[in-house]
Amino acid sequence: MPQPHIDVVGIGNAIVDVFAQADDDFLVKHAMNKGSMALIDETRAEAIYEAMGPAMEISGGSAANTTAGLASFGGRVAFIGKVKNDTLGHTFMHDIRAIGVGFDIAPASDGPSTARSYILVTPDGQRTMNTFLGAAQDLHPNDIDPDKIASAAITYLEGYLWDPKRAKEAFLKAAAAAHAAKRTVALTLSDSFCVDRWRDEFLNLMRNGTVDIVFANEAELKSLYQTADFDAAVVAVKKDIKLAVLTRSEKGCLVVSRNGTEAVRAFPIDKLVDTTGAGDLFAAGFLYGLARGKDHVSAARLGCLAAAEVIQHIGARPQTPLKALAAENGLTV
Amino acid sequence: MPQPHIDVVGIGNAIVDVFAQADDDFLVKHAMNKGSMALIDETRAEAIYEAMGPAMEISGGSAANTTAGLASFGGRVAFIGKVKNDTLGHTFMHDIRAIGVGFDIAPASDGPSTARSYILVTPDGQRTMNTFLGAAQDLHPNDIDPDKIASAAITYLEGYLWDPKRAKEAFLKAAAAAHAAKRTVALTLSDSFCVDRWRDEFLNLMRNGTVDIVFANEAELKSLYQTADFDAAVVAVKKDIKLAVLTRSEKGCLVVSRNGTEAVRAFPIDKLVDTTGAGDLFAAGFLYGLARGKDHVSAARLGCLAAAEVIQHIGARPQTPLKALAAENGLTV
Repeated sequence: MPQPHIDVVGIGNAIVDVFAQADDDFLVKHAMNKGSMALIDETRAEAIYEAMGPAMEISGGSAANTTAGLASFGGRVAFIGKVKNDTLGHTFMHDIRAIGVGFDIAPASDGPSTARSYILVTPDGQRTMNTFLGAAQDLHPNDIDPDKIASAAITYLEGYLWDPKRAKEAFLKAAAAAHAAKRTVALTLSDSFCVDRWRDEFLNLMRNGTVDIVFANEAELKSLYQTADFDAAVVAVKKDIKLAVLTRSEKGCLVVSRNGTEAVRAFPIDKLVDTTGAGDLFAAGFLYGLARGKDHVSAARLGCLAAAEVIQHIGARPQTPLKALAAENGLTV
Repeated sequence: MPQPHIDVVGIGNAIVDVFAQADDDFLVKHAMNKGSMALIDETRAEAIYEAMGPAMEISGGSAANTTAGLASFGGRVAFIGKVKNDTLGHTFMHDIRAIGVGFDIAPASDGPSTARSYILVTPDGQRTMNTFLGAAQDLHPNDIDPDKIASAAITYLEGYLWDPKRAKEAFLKAAAAAHAAKRTVALTLSDSFCVDRWRDEFLNLMRNGTVDIVFANEAELKSLYQTADFDAAVVAVKKDIKLAVLTRSEKGCLVVSRNGTEAVRAFPIDKLVDTTGAGDLFAAGFLYGLARGKDHVSAARLGCLAAAEVIQHIGARPQTPLKALAAENGLTV
């Protein structure tokens, strides 16, 4: 097999985030599960937007954020996702290319509008997401170019892709193309409610070797194994996959492989502003380290650094170049 | 005359800001005057957007930001400006209403798209603005309802309105309606290059009593009187208008009236992030104080507080409720 040309190709929902501040009462009044992601239809999207406070629009999407983080570290990276040829779609395309991510999927000329997620940030920095998938759900297996997948050391997939039917097929096509080229496939479980919707299928993907690496936070891992006991879930995941990277917010992360479990501490922060993108940016740092031949602990440190940057401002993509930030903090990249 | 029903009506260009970080070299390469506002056409708008980094979209517009700040203090306030019935126009309308500003000008159904300003923020926190006026330049005298103007204690106008021809007529109609109802008219000079374009007309507005209060920063005041000597400009402005409120960045402000000149110190900040909106939010605090019967120094303190809030994050509108912030800092509102 030839050497990979790029570090990572990310595949996910192409979404523009619409951020507003809200208090806990707002979440209760609008029946939202704090800290989670809910899929909404256009009618509910309009109702939430009408009710929410003044907003700011920043490109998002889980795997898209991860590729943006990788580019900010200096990685060679591409993103695959679907927008419509509308104002928000142009915003998404501009922003992902401007940070240095390759993106060449043609926008849809008709059908639903570009996806948006209404993200309510509470005073504790937690975010609660309400996503209208729109054009993103029309990601099609035809959008997956096996040669592009083969050119990447790692193909990174978001669990959210399991919601739209054809995106799921695109996911499986990409994973097969990656393995045919002897590359690595990574999956993030995305959200505990997403895990609840697709638990058995996600477990199958891990157990049958469709994915080689899984990223999960505590809530997602507990949901996967339907247990309140994190330690028991760690024991379980160790049997199901070669490498599990488990994020634990301010407690840092665990890297679980057949060789053992290693803990890495979270990177210190001044002030928590908005947790949106924490998991996505952790994955960016970890994958960057991995693609560049670092050991797991060094890769996890890069992940913790990137997560710390993104939770100190509103928006799920880095505002400080991560390559420079890593150098300032004595982390070699 | 009946008592005013609202504190302030602001009239200005309705703009959505598109923020990106940039270095000084970017400004030089694209022939931008650091710290100023340039009017651009659609072709240049597209070229700048293409070249600039990943962005975030936040509603802006000078007088619009001021009304947003007034609403955040708890003021009763309305805004008059023109958007198109397009995605950015809906964003603008949502955001200004969501913060509590009355806005009922119908969006244009055809003509140019909603105005946007490409704002490059350099590492020193300075902002350089490139504005495509679009639909905003179609603000028409018919959009001015004399009864609404008469209902406001203060009518606040931005100097930028002097650029589009019909907006200028709308400005004069509003000022006449305010004075017919024995209300106060305030003007911000907006930008030193704007002053350079309209120096004689701005001086006439002040000298013939069309405006009662003028807001200016140091650069604008020096441009107005074509002098490098700030003190000489202060002497000059004192003869030309009843009340001049002069902002001086980290040096605070001067309130210049026929009774004398009072200095108020800037409010301390932790970190300068983005100066966009500093003058707009200063005006919000000052006008709120004035409309609620405070003395000039107390009003200026509210202005300094609001300016300090807005320069510590990206975006020209407050992210922290100013009423609560004032209370925390022992300022009565």
